[in-house]
Amino acid sequence: MAKFDNYKDVFPHAKLTRSPDGVLEVMLHTNGDTLIFNGYAHEEFVELFHQIGQDPGNRVVILTGAGAAFMESISPEGFDFFSPQGYDKIYREGKKVLMNILDIEVPLIAAVNGPVRLHSEYILLADVVLATPSTVFQDKPHFEFGIVPGDGVNLLWQEVIGSVRGRYFILTRQELGAETAREWGAVNEIVPADKLLARAREIAEGLAKLPPLTTRYTRIALTQKLRHIVNEGIGHGLALEGISAAEVARSTGKGR
Amino acid sequence: MAKFDNYKDVFPHAKLTRSPDGVLEVMLHTNGDTLIFNGYAHEEFVELFHQIGQDPGNRVVILTGAGAAFMESISPEGFDFFSPQGYDKIYREGKKVLMNILDIEVPLIAAVNGPVRLHSEYILLADVVLATPSTVFQDKPHFEFGIVPGDGVNLLWQEVIGSVRGRYFILTRQELGAETAREWGAVNEIVPADKLLARAREIAEGLAKLPPLTTRYTRIALTQKLRHIVNEGIGHGLALEGISAAEVARSTGKGR
Amino acid sequence: MAKFDNYKDVFPHAKLTRSPDGVLEVMLHTNGDTLIFNGYAHEEFVELFHQIGQDPGNRVVILTGAGAAFMESISPEGFDFFSPQGYDKIYREGKKVLMNILDIEVPLIAAVNGPVRLHSEYILLADVVLATPSTVFQDKPHFEFGIVPGDGVNLLWQEVIGSVRGRYFILTRQELGAETAREWGAVNEIVPADKLLARAREIAEGLAKLPPLTTRYTRIALTQKLRHIVNEGIGHGLALEGISAAEVARSTGKGR
Amino acid sequence: MAKFDNYKDVFPHAKLTRSPDGVLEVMLHTNGDTLIFNGYAHEEFVELFHQIGQDPGNRVVILTGAGAAFMESISPEGFDFFSPQGYDKIYREGKKVLMNILDIEVPLIAAVNGPVRLHSEYILLADVVLATPSTVFQDKPHFEFGIVPGDGVNLLWQEVIGSVRGRYFILTRQELGAETAREWGAVNEIVPADKLLARAREIAEGLAKLPPLTTRYTRIALTQKLRHIVNEGIGHGLALEGISAAEVARSTGKGR
Amino acid sequence: MAKFDNYKDVFPHAKLTRSPDGVLEVMLHTNGDTLIFNGYAHEEFVELFHQIGQDPGNRVVILTGAGAAFMESISPEGFDFFSPQGYDKIYREGKKVLMNILDIEVPLIAAVNGPVRLHSEYILLADVVLATPSTVFQDKPHFEFGIVPGDGVNLLWQEVIGSVRGRYFILTRQELGAETAREWGAVNEIVPADKLLARAREIAEGLAKLPPLTTRYTRIALTQKLRHIVNEGIGHGLALEGISAAEVARSTGKGR
Amino acid sequence: MAKFDNYKDVFPHAKLTRSPDGVLEVMLHTNGDTLIFNGYAHEEFVELFHQIGQDPGNRVVILTGAGAAFMESISPEGFDFFSPQGYDKIYREGKKVLMNILDIEVPLIAAVNGPVRLHSEYILLADVVLATPSTVFQDKPHFEFGIVPGDGVNLLWQEVIGSVRGRYFILTRQELGAETAREWGAVNEIVPADKLLARAREIAEGLAKLPPLTTRYTRIALTQKLRHIVNEGIGHGLALEGISAAEVARSTGKGR
Repeated sequence: MAKFDNYKDVFPHAKLTRSPDGVLEVMLHTNGDTLIFNGYAHEEFVELFHQIGQDPGNRVVILTGAGAAFMESISPEGFDFFSPQGYDKIYREGKKVLMNILDIEVPLIAAVNGPVRLHSEYILLADVVLATPSTVFQDKPHFEFGIVPGDGVNLLWQEVIGSVRGRYFILTRQELGAETAREWGAVNEIVPADKLLARAREIAEGLAKLPPLTTRYTRIALTQKLRHIVNEGIGHGLALEGISAAEVARSTGKGR
Repeated sequence: MAKFDNYKDVFPHAKLTRSPDGVLEVMLHTNGDTLIFNGYAHEEFVELFHQIGQDPGNRVVILTGAGAAFMESISPEGFDFFSPQGYDKIYREGKKVLMNILDIEVPLIAAVNGPVRLHSEYILLADVVLATPSTVFQDKPHFEFGIVPGDGVNLLWQEVIGSVRGRYFILTRQELGAETAREWGAVNEIVPADKLLARAREIAEGLAKLPPLTTRYTRIALTQKLRHIVNEGIGHGLALEGISAAEVARSTGKGR
Repeated sequence: MAKFDNYKDVFPHAKLTRSPDGVLEVMLHTNGDTLIFNGYAHEEFVELFHQIGQDPGNRVVILTGAGAAFMESISPEGFDFFSPQGYDKIYREGKKVLMNILDIEVPLIAAVNGPVRLHSEYILLADVVLATPSTVFQDKPHFEFGIVPGDGVNLLWQEVIGSVRGRYFILTRQELGAETAREWGAVNEIVPADKLLARAREIAEGLAKLPPLTTRYTRIALTQKLRHIVNEGIGHGLALEGISAAEVARSTGKGR
Repeated sequence: MAKFDNYKDVFPHAKLTRSPDGVLEVMLHTNGDTLIFNGYAHEEFVELFHQIGQDPGNRVVILTGAGAAFMESISPEGFDFFSPQGYDKIYREGKKVLMNILDIEVPLIAAVNGPVRLHSEYILLADVVLATPSTVFQDKPHFEFGIVPGDGVNLLWQEVIGSVRGRYFILTRQELGAETAREWGAVNEIVPADKLLARAREIAEGLAKLPPLTTRYTRIALTQKLRHIVNEGIGHGLALEGISAAEVARSTGKGR
Repeated sequence: MAKFDNYKDVFPHAKLTRSPDGVLEVMLHTNGDTLIFNGYAHEEFVELFHQIGQDPGNRVVILTGAGAAFMESISPEGFDFFSPQGYDKIYREGKKVLMNILDIEVPLIAAVNGPVRLHSEYILLADVVLATPSTVFQDKPHFEFGIVPGDGVNLLWQEVIGSVRGRYFILTRQELGAETAREWGAVNEIVPADKLLARAREIAEGLAKLPPLTTRYTRIALTQKLRHIVNEGIGHGLALEGISAAEVARSTGKGR
Repeated sequence: MAKFDNYKDVFPHAKLTRSPDGVLEVMLHTNGDTLIFNGYAHEEFVELFHQIGQDPGNRVVILTGAGAAFMESISPEGFDFFSPQGYDKIYREGKKVLMNILDIEVPLIAAVNGPVRLHSEYILLADVVLATPSTVFQDKPHFEFGIVPGDGVNLLWQEVIGSVRGRYFILTRQELGAETAREWGAVNEIVPADKLLARAREIAEGLAKLPPLTTRYTRIALTQKLRHIVNEGIGHGLALEGISAAEVARSTGKGR
């Protein structure tokens, strides 16, 4: 257990708790309420998922949010999108964070507690997706800032809901309600908010009863293709996003 | 604008108009009515999409048809399917046309004005697909002629509606109505015929407001996988189609 | 016809009949009733699909089961999961059987006569899937035995019903009813049990009227991606399954 | 050993002998002398490599030729290159033969006893290549017949000796002597003719001392990429070869 | 011949001549002497290779340079490397130019008349490479300008001379002499300068004697892998090059 | 610099020093002399390369050994090869270590100070390979233990020295001297032992003068293919190695 103790309290935007059976719950938050995503969280989550992935004490992982939404708003704090050196940090972290989620080699359950308007690709890397009725998916900030959605949403929505649907979702900033998301295969179950975690734990406990190697290798066997998609495509998308940010910076005078 | 002037009037089967914001409308037609696809159109469209793709003045592209259908019938005129040399032209053009559509590196909106019974794969390369209630998708002429549907429909329908659905669609010459196509992810919105273009323009104008590099690079980031699919698979499919055509020619005495 | 005669009666778990038009029906069974899958059937089916695939007399293939289910239960007879040498046989056969199904280079129609609780990936390699109302899909024995579902179900369900749906299906041992399977794209038509074969034959006879090269090359053109998926991924999944079986053996004392 | 007895004497163009340690020697020949490749051998070798691959009694395989050359001349007997139906047989067999060689999942040693002027790609799928000083590699008959070298030589020579070297080798019908082949990585050792088999056996016996699973899985681990290359590319190349043959037939009046 | 007449005189940096047998010679130059590469040539060559590729009258293509070198120096004229919009043009053209060379679907012979210090990747896409004794390969300007060599040299040198050699070549700006290039597989023949074109023509005339479909489909069959490499990798490399250029601009004050 | 201070002294088997220009030297060792590889080093190096990769203060990395060899012998200490749970640790670490080396996104120079008889694949992931005259490459312990060489040597030697050479190297436990390794493209320069580090530093300092983003993105642009190879193939190879180890354990009675 020593290992868990080493990292469980070091992430300001993630509350970690683990059951005796090894079911780890990860609640992303800002001061206990819905996460306000910013540059510090971007950096922090790379390490968060890395630590989770390398701790053999984790048998199943539940990822959830705090308050009424999973992730809805972004703050510029800690980000420097508009210089090549500043964007480089985003590019590095953006490439790593998805691979680190995939390097969590135990079943990953997303318990989506409400709207997800950015980094919805995290959810799509989960093996089981539960969502509350109030959940809405959207890719909002990229186009609001005028930049390319190249951080993986470009790849993973097409993979999960289909090629034409996925491209429309991004380009029109579509709001995808929980029910439609379920019909289209991005959500497995819609669960009332007050039962969301209980249901996630129920599934998790069931999986934690399997032999440890079996759960781990099943995750590996199930995510071969996702690893391929992320490894081959994430760099190019993020690089294009960076160039578009540099152009926004130039044309608006920010990038100095 | 000079560039657009150079090619806008040279394609007999495509009427091109462009808004001041750079939204290009491409209406495929035969004498102003629904396109009768033939060997000349096959050749012409390779160049049409090439020209569109290399004109930086195009910010968003809308592809539509004329009359009551998008594309329904084919005429043997201008085709020589039944000799190796004749088929070679089809093979060359067939390989290029899909890559040239993907080389249109701005968002592509298909405004499907009615039935599509051949070359439905063009539609599936669009990022947004709007269809009228009368729209029907089918792959009809290949099996009517007794030849392999190897021009990309074999690859792209599976990608968009799923593997088992896509293979059934081809093999049974299924008629896919607009509503089912929407449920299966091949159509994003069903729009009354008299509002189709207005809706397409509305989406297009919204996209045209984004910074130019952003729209372009978003299209690139969204179509990585389609480029892979077409680049890896189109040649083999078309070659098999050609051999099957040669066999039809032999067995029916056409191929001399 | 000589060739068909050579293999038609050699498979104890498969009854083969062929129409004059070359429509081959393959009924998997145990003594005429629903197949009890065991180690002998595992070995036998590798050769069964190989023989079918290399007989040019087969123009279309229908795969079905006997009795009330397609495949529901497994018997340990003939399997040695729990030693490396014993598992090696399963690994070898498991890799070959799916490739041999894909090497059946004529349209393959699955006529699913009832529940499929193991080796459901066979069905997903069919180009047309018909199912009775009583059909249910599930991946049951792997987790019951505590081992990794790495025999192709890990790859193919995601391909057919989507990435998040497919992973949930495996991890939760979900029972997928015929209607949901149809909505999610794993089944093309639901047909009453007493009309199942008739409908399969109707589709088969239609396809058998096409020129022989055309049906063959259409199957090839339609299964490029499936070949890629199986060739790249099956070995790793089966190897992980084997290691998990060895661990089960160790921890339960079976593997000596 | 029963299994070996079943197939060891059924291949007229291949003499098979096996040592007590499981080292199988396969000598391709025509009446005991250098093989004259023809349509019957083309068909026979598909089955030959299949049988070898599925016999667990084979621990290491040595492939060699008879007389002064490995394979130098081709006879039209048994081939019908010039009709689609006839070519289809070549396409089917051509696709299978290389995969069947790769399905020999034990180390494969080529003992090249002299010139190889066709089907040199067989050699390149071996893990160890020994050659006599008189060995010469060339791809000769394709261009002599005026057809595309699309049977795998197009893929494998580039893989083994490099991209620019491999394309030149094919296009100029280059004669590659044993010494240059060794310098370029297509041959591992040059061995006097009278010691060739002894050296092959020495290496084979060494490998046969390893545990059986180890030799088998090492071959699998070493040939992942070759499987990828063959699976992805062989069909297209052979289809193009077929179309070129049909054109030759037309222009010379053969293909009726 | 009409087609050739349409484009043969429109490229200021390329002199085109064609023999009666369809052997096209393309000499890159600046005012008849060695090409000074600049932004106009960058744009021009995209169209040059496109036109060559789509003219069925070209049976074999020879690519050569003028004066004492193939390509040695670069002029900033016509380039805007240092703003996102300016770099975008380079990114677009850079992606197209290599694909357009691969879309020349007839054998391509490079007759390298002297040093190649930039865009050496053009040469590596040729099927036959002849070089004079004075030929030297190097990737010079990228690092001189302080930017990433991401235009394809990063991909193709590793493919042709090997992974470790190719990376060293780029990183150390190695000068690769003709003889070493031959030993490493980047050059097929070293030919005295005054015999270079004669030898290229000799090979070309030999190839032009083959049936037209055969030469074309052989090029296609031989370049499958190169298409894969370029299609999958070129965009990312060029985007990284662009970001590095933006950073150079910032840090040196150029990019305004 | 804080970051470097955090990890520079925590790795017992790696001595880290960094020049003011950011050239990091990593000397693998056991008590200051040649590394004796064991299970602790296996675990440690995963973290070592991870830490190096995520420190932006590292501009170029030199990897070298201590004493007369780079890595020659292995000790069973800290390894449990022979139970599934024990092997799982090796599988996890083995998959990560190569990806972590590739995640060092700055140029990597291997300064090979002598024989490398295990984990030679680390060297092949370096962009520049310098070796002393006494350097010898071999893959020795796998076959000595009777297990599959599936940790990446199976993939990377073929990539670097060619397909037939690479397979022979593994299967025959070939000793590859420095000179032959240079001729075959695995070594760039042979340097006397007393000048090895000086030469490595000279190259490193040259690279460190380039803009930081340029060196980083050049490494990324140069290693796309290696990432693909490792990501796609490493898991399967290591799993096969594990099964072979389990079999060795069984047959020798170790694995209890």
